[in-house]
Amino acid sequence: MKRYFIELSYNGKNFFGWQRQPGQISVQEEIETALSKLYSNKEISVVGCGRTDSGVHAKSYFLHVDLPDHDALKDLNQFIFKLNKMLPKSIVLHEMFETDKHARFDAIKRTYRYFVHFKKDPFINEQSWYFPQQLDVKRMNEAAQSLIGTKDFTSLSKLHTDVKTNICTVSDAEWKQESENAWYFEISADRFLRNMVRATVGTLVDVGLGKINPTDITPILNAKDRGAASTSVPAHGLFLWEIDY
Amino acid sequence: MKRYFIELSYNGKNFFGWQRQPGQISVQEEIETALSKLYSNKEISVVGCGRTDSGVHAKSYFLHVDLPDHDALKDLNQFIFKLNKMLPKSIVLHEMFETDKHARFDAIKRTYRYFVHFKKDPFINEQSWYFPQQLDVKRMNEAAQSLIGTKDFTSLSKLHTDVKTNICTVSDAEWKQESENAWYFEISADRFLRNMVRATVGTLVDVGLGKINPTDITPILNAKDRGAASTSVPAHGLFLWEIDY
Repeated sequence: MKRYFIELSYNGKNFFGWQRQPGQISVQEEIETALSKLYSNKEISVVGCGRTDSGVHAKSYFLHVDLPDHDALKDLNQFIFKLNKMLPKSIVLHEMFETDKHARFDAIKRTYRYFVHFKKDPFINEQSWYFPQQLDVKRMNEAAQSLIGTKDFTSLSKLHTDVKTNICTVSDAEWKQESENAWYFEISADRFLRNMVRATVGTLVDVGLGKINPTDITPILNAKDRGAASTSVPAHGLFLWEIDY
Repeated sequence: MKRYFIELSYNGKNFFGWQRQPGQISVQEEIETALSKLYSNKEISVVGCGRTDSGVHAKSYFLHVDLPDHDALKDLNQFIFKLNKMLPKSIVLHEMFETDKHARFDAIKRTYRYFVHFKKDPFINEQSWYFPQQLDVKRMNEAAQSLIGTKDFTSLSKLHTDVKTNICTVSDAEWKQESENAWYFEISADRFLRNMVRATVGTLVDVGLGKINPTDITPILNAKDRGAASTSVPAHGLFLWEIDY
């Protein structure tokens, strides 16, 4: 038995998120099913670096898996080549290597990007949120500065989740221009709460529209109340972008 | 009554092509329906620069439309802004201006691009064809040279179409690299026959695989027989890219 990391990407459009759930199609289940086939249908479980919600994409995702010895493991490139052929187009495994780390507990930093485009575009609208109004990005970046640090993000997370603490350390939070009519919000932290990026983007968009002041972010966080912040933006603009170990 | 050009883009994925057809969803019908609504449901017909097959995209497409006078036509930007709001996400109108030209008959050059990627990618696979085998692009470009000129393209077009002549003048035909694992084939001509780009790409791919020699292209064209060339590649990698008037 050896432990391996696999780095992968997935298009979240047709998945009910990463996590295996009864009666729903998940990325985890697709990968576990493919792995089981290589092991004569023996049950194989993988551990992901985190959950992603229904419809959210991953540009870079890591899982670990403890695998019994197998001839096919002698050539790991060949091993993931075989798995890729069994997986749907929407999931791609990039690299596999031996590790002694835990995909979730040993991740020290996670980075998400949320893509927004301001001019209707039929070719990107499944991977970016179309928002037709003018946004003041300078104001949004002023507001984003207030997110940086070790803070309680209760106001920007889904209610009633059973995590022990809502404190996260955000190391970066900035809107960046991708092209003339497209921007993305990039945020890095040691951990993220459920729905945190989408609630944060929704709140920053309200800053960009002038409905909230940049200086309102700190009071919103201090309220520790989801109702103090704005509504979340849709899932399809969100990508888990990078994981650091 | 004045004539206008409208430049637009569409994602062909959910359309049965440009052309209105009974019982099928077409780009033409979507646009005519939106225009009619601005004219109290009066029937409005548009004329496109050409047909595109089911599933084929258009990065740049032109239509003309003869419109009765209307207050809304005083501000053409506002006019297409209104239309865009009525149209699905997959169709975007970019620009509208007065013209005395015919969208189809006055087009002097059409350019298509066919996108292929060689490494599985979950984010582009609806707008590029995934082809996992190695292709010799240099050979493919040698072969593409034989397409240039005024020639009979019967061998590279769908059988039994009722056009009067199968002669086209191809001015450019070349494979170009887009990124490490993605290429596209760009071809320009005064006119295209049905399925011509996809049959051409399919044939060039067989050259790239070594199944056909670059020098075989001329005999294939001379055969004037669709059976002499290779099978067509899928529609979702094809974009109508540019129209010159």
